[in-house]
Amino acid sequence: MAGSSFGTLFKLTTFGESHGTAIGGIIDGVPAYFPLDIPAIQLELDRRKPGQSSLVTQRKESDTVQFLSGIFEGKTLGSPIGFIILNENQKEADYAHLKDTFRPSHADFTYDKKYGIRDYRGGGRSSARETASRVVAGALAKQVLNSIGIKFSTFVDQVGDIRFHSDEFFALKEIESNLVRCPDKNVATKMENLIREVRKEGDTIGGVISCVIKGVPAGLGEPVFDKLPAELGKAMLSINAVKAFEIGSGMESIIMRGSQHNDLFNEDGTTQTNHSGGIQGGISNGMPIHFRVAFKPVATIMQTQASINTKGDKIELEGKGRHDACVVPRAVPIVEAMAALVILDFYLRNKSVHL
Amino acid sequence: MAGSSFGTLFKLTTFGESHGTAIGGIIDGVPAYFPLDIPAIQLELDRRKPGQSSLVTQRKESDTVQFLSGIFEGKTLGSPIGFIILNENQKEADYAHLKDTFRPSHADFTYDKKYGIRDYRGGGRSSARETASRVVAGALAKQVLNSIGIKFSTFVDQVGDIRFHSDEFFALKEIESNLVRCPDKNVATKMENLIREVRKEGDTIGGVISCVIKGVPAGLGEPVFDKLPAELGKAMLSINAVKAFEIGSGMESIIMRGSQHNDLFNEDGTTQTNHSGGIQGGISNGMPIHFRVAFKPVATIMQTQASINTKGDKIELEGKGRHDACVVPRAVPIVEAMAALVILDFYLRNKSVHL
Amino acid sequence: MAGSSFGTLFKLTTFGESHGTAIGGIIDGVPAYFPLDIPAIQLELDRRKPGQSSLVTQRKESDTVQFLSGIFEGKTLGSPIGFIILNENQKEADYAHLKDTFRPSHADFTYDKKYGIRDYRGGGRSSARETASRVVAGALAKQVLNSIGIKFSTFVDQVGDIRFHSDEFFALKEIESNLVRCPDKNVATKMENLIREVRKEGDTIGGVISCVIKGVPAGLGEPVFDKLPAELGKAMLSINAVKAFEIGSGMESIIMRGSQHNDLFNEDGTTQTNHSGGIQGGISNGMPIHFRVAFKPVATIMQTQASINTKGDKIELEGKGRHDACVVPRAVPIVEAMAALVILDFYLRNKSVHL
Amino acid sequence: MAGSSFGTLFKLTTFGESHGTAIGGIIDGVPAYFPLDIPAIQLELDRRKPGQSSLVTQRKESDTVQFLSGIFEGKTLGSPIGFIILNENQKEADYAHLKDTFRPSHADFTYDKKYGIRDYRGGGRSSARETASRVVAGALAKQVLNSIGIKFSTFVDQVGDIRFHSDEFFALKEIESNLVRCPDKNVATKMENLIREVRKEGDTIGGVISCVIKGVPAGLGEPVFDKLPAELGKAMLSINAVKAFEIGSGMESIIMRGSQHNDLFNEDGTTQTNHSGGIQGGISNGMPIHFRVAFKPVATIMQTQASINTKGDKIELEGKGRHDACVVPRAVPIVEAMAALVILDFYLRNKSVHL
Repeated sequence: MAGSSFGTLFKLTTFGESHGTAIGGIIDGVPAYFPLDIPAIQLELDRRKPGQSSLVTQRKESDTVQFLSGIFEGKTLGSPIGFIILNENQKEADYAHLKDTFRPSHADFTYDKKYGIRDYRGGGRSSARETASRVVAGALAKQVLNSIGIKFSTFVDQVGDIRFHSDEFFALKEIESNLVRCPDKNVATKMENLIREVRKEGDTIGGVISCVIKGVPAGLGEPVFDKLPAELGKAMLSINAVKAFEIGSGMESIIMRGSQHNDLFNEDGTTQTNHSGGIQGGISNGMPIHFRVAFKPVATIMQTQASINTKGDKIELEGKGRHDACVVPRAVPIVEAMAALVILDFYLRNKSVHL
Repeated sequence: MAGSSFGTLFKLTTFGESHGTAIGGIIDGVPAYFPLDIPAIQLELDRRKPGQSSLVTQRKESDTVQFLSGIFEGKTLGSPIGFIILNENQKEADYAHLKDTFRPSHADFTYDKKYGIRDYRGGGRSSARETASRVVAGALAKQVLNSIGIKFSTFVDQVGDIRFHSDEFFALKEIESNLVRCPDKNVATKMENLIREVRKEGDTIGGVISCVIKGVPAGLGEPVFDKLPAELGKAMLSINAVKAFEIGSGMESIIMRGSQHNDLFNEDGTTQTNHSGGIQGGISNGMPIHFRVAFKPVATIMQTQASINTKGDKIELEGKGRHDACVVPRAVPIVEAMAALVILDFYLRNKSVHL
Repeated sequence: MAGSSFGTLFKLTTFGESHGTAIGGIIDGVPAYFPLDIPAIQLELDRRKPGQSSLVTQRKESDTVQFLSGIFEGKTLGSPIGFIILNENQKEADYAHLKDTFRPSHADFTYDKKYGIRDYRGGGRSSARETASRVVAGALAKQVLNSIGIKFSTFVDQVGDIRFHSDEFFALKEIESNLVRCPDKNVATKMENLIREVRKEGDTIGGVISCVIKGVPAGLGEPVFDKLPAELGKAMLSINAVKAFEIGSGMESIIMRGSQHNDLFNEDGTTQTNHSGGIQGGISNGMPIHFRVAFKPVATIMQTQASINTKGDKIELEGKGRHDACVVPRAVPIVEAMAALVILDFYLRNKSVHL
Repeated sequence: MAGSSFGTLFKLTTFGESHGTAIGGIIDGVPAYFPLDIPAIQLELDRRKPGQSSLVTQRKESDTVQFLSGIFEGKTLGSPIGFIILNENQKEADYAHLKDTFRPSHADFTYDKKYGIRDYRGGGRSSARETASRVVAGALAKQVLNSIGIKFSTFVDQVGDIRFHSDEFFALKEIESNLVRCPDKNVATKMENLIREVRKEGDTIGGVISCVIKGVPAGLGEPVFDKLPAELGKAMLSINAVKAFEIGSGMESIIMRGSQHNDLFNEDGTTQTNHSGGIQGGISNGMPIHFRVAFKPVATIMQTQASINTKGDKIELEGKGRHDACVVPRAVPIVEAMAALVILDFYLRNKSVHL
């Protein structure tokens, strides 16, 4: 109940501060006798890790995952899979200036109010570093789902005012064809230019990630409270810096008429349009699931800002450290990982609907 | 795990199909010795019920709640509160034509695929009628929260392309000053006109509800997965017809720079702006919480639509029955109820952070 | 988390004080499309109800269950099943003397300390009356389990020092052949005589119930914490007046040697003995499951006892009302109901072990 | 739901096979700002570890716990505490003979049936080695509880037919005064002799552990299903080799009359006797909590046994390896750890009963 677990039957529990000894987690409820591709999990982590390209933070972490249990002779045992990722980049001195300082729009103030103590080194538990554990579990879930024909396509859909705006399914190769992870190279170039420009100004910018999932059978999701978009929304809104979530037509549905928005059936049960985003009444209908996730501009900027210290005195906060000017390129595998956790959990939950 | 429960320490579990004997629920984890105002709970139900005004569906249900347990001599016992609302409007004949029919963008198809059986009368469990149980529990939670200074202001923020777009806190009297439940009378009149116009066309239209919560102490919300916006988002996305959720700056944050978006502190720990919507790092910071919820146009329209039957044959579906042309006026108490469930649950959960 | 729910995938949540309007519950996670035999559920309630024979309390309650949802045209919908049982025997005057009194070895004192308020009429929430809701859910679970070959045999194994002590499977007809519900008529007569004798003295006596379950497939139960005996033990120890739980050889195993206690395998995977009670490593092995549940003598006696009132003053408490001299004959369907809840839940949970 | 988590607000999740890389766990819901005594936690582990004395298995494991997160400058952060214990004694060759063999009364057969795969080296996940993780979390919980005046006394109460049988509270020093962990030296000597004698025969013997907890405030435990004895019972019955659980008078209550068994109140709310074991109606009453846990003789014996292999062929199984002849001396810290997890969880849960 303290919030470090996600899922019901397929459940991830994580631990770790950004500058402690390690982060990691336990994945419980893993189906047994599944042959795991460990290097493929590491590859997903590499897509999230800092320092991976000139577009992202130049902080260096190898983010190497070590599995400690639950796997035997290459297969899952059905027992919990424990894993750790050591924190290698622990330059405490970098953070000494933050000990008594509340950074604007960070979690420093709220953690202090909640707990009366915080690990001020790099955000501690509130650092986005914890999402690496999500990527491990999500990559594992994705392998399981792939084996039953469920595929994910997650890409950058918008950076600042540069929009791609697609609900198509793109191959990983297309998405990985550029540093931004937008499948359209022209749009990607504009996005990349904008990110570099913003960074030069010592500033940051927001963006949107789209996720399309195909092959999801009809019937996943649980009425009433655990509707599929409800759990997907929770999953996404639990990621640092996320400010909005849209399923299917999302915000655009507001100005539509019912007669436009309704997805008429084909004779085979598919629909002619997919404003529903693959979900009706909270349950998947077999059409591709599509949702979008909006990220705010990251709070750490390379500019001097006014702030306060823990005593409530005004201070000047200098911008320093190595940070992302735009979080969405690195957030692509995180969004996809969380989506995979949700879908696999619902897949397993759905098995108990019939004897 | 079948999805009919919401919350961890303050937990609502519901049951009921729209045309069965009754709907109802059990509220567990109610703080003991709290003096309940039962008529005030009924008033909230009245704000949700059909037939309440000329703007909404003319279906008649008294929606009278009966409490069966957990209350003694006017006070909560700390034991679970069971309640029922009888279904009075059970005209089965109205729905006979839906027995073998899948209505577009309804849950008929997905329930059938998931369960192999459905109560086709009025949507059964997928009907928005179940939200009445949420309103009962939410009204109770609101009374508890009001007693410790936490107040809610929930109103219609947009209907179709008519925007109010405010994050201010309005008194209930202002919100209830018109049938649309938009605090600005001019905007409300435009919204009302649009709804009546759309209804004349036999069509429906979407909208947005805003919710502002003040008096929430700093420290509510649990990292990592149970962040406050994650649970609020789940709560809202579990409501029928919801397609998007925004916290604070929401979708607008995408095009902002970090230097604009960051909320600078005042010396007392409040912030000069509130793009964060009262939440940082998933935890409340003491500023008003603000979020927006987008509803699609309801799927039931008074027009003839092409569809299929359960055998996959093409059919024509006539529009009949008594339905809302726009759901947001009646959804205001539902959004507020779900918000109250989330906040009270986090309030109780937060008590265990310190011994 | 307030303790009114039981189970994970097949989940019962209950409400109700003994002298409020009604008791009842919600059963969530019921497999869909199962044809329910409603009269058979009522028959189980009749086995638990007061006034059923000359051996038990002469209090009269019809204990008629009304189902409110989740069933359509005789079959389960897969949606939650809500039900209520009205409280008919609400003679408040009977209990006026208990308003300010703490009865020895009842829950009056502890509820008062915990909640600062209690419904003193007949024990309120702490009354064993709530177990009627368990019997409803358990009877339903039993029907589902019967359909897949899992059968229950629950009987009285000991009353005071009169022991039957068997781990055999007896047919319901044998168990119901006498008022005590012990399959051996001679032993049953002795038990009956003892109960009548104890009642004449205005006193009460303890007893033991045995439960044997056959047809449970190998593989049910979840390591590490949710072992099958752990959940069975929790289920039984949550029943009023239960003081001990034994699985398989139970207390007798203490003085045995490993070489005696080990259950050697036959070639077909069955075992030659069954000291394990059908469970090894927390998981069913396909042999009959056997456990025993010990009940203390009920605390309400028809004798004058010294006690204290809510102010801490000494008082004399007269014995009055209509109560059981021995709880085990009526507790047989309760034990069986809880066992069925546990087994069905594990059956459903086990479906997610493989894709 | 796969069973590797225990607790609701104070929650332990564990992982690890006996012969994998490591075992470990995550403790979530730890109260913040609590000064931890890490060496004291290691001392508890040392009380459980193999090779600690001539009376127990001579297998060598240092069982050194490493904490990875959640602690900063000696205090808890309120974030999850991750920890690992490396497996040092991984002699795979020792277990090669078990690859295709089902040992009698072990979990080999049931794991194989459930998962279709098992780590046969030393029992894998079913090995009692996983209880080391419970001891870590329990030792931490005990420190927290000690700081608010709640103290534990856990000791060996019976070995084979040698009974101590006490419900008194003994100091740790008395319990640790001998290798058996029975506070009475004479009885301890007899127990020790019996264990050595049984071991010489290549056999094993069962036993009982008693736990007495004082300082528990009235009000802990949640009706109806999460009664304090229900959760204590589940906690104990989840420990390997446990066959029975008694609260307070336990099995002895069966033959008692209500007039004997009822605990009469003193004017201060304490009771003259404590047959209830400190719990009434599932809720603590402020008296010492007392329960007993029965362990079967361990299944691994140093004698040749008939068994079957995975193909169902008869085989002879030789007794080899280094094992305990009686598990109770080493199980004392495990029982105490599980009790501490239960009590702290209920202590935190009880905070939400009042606003």
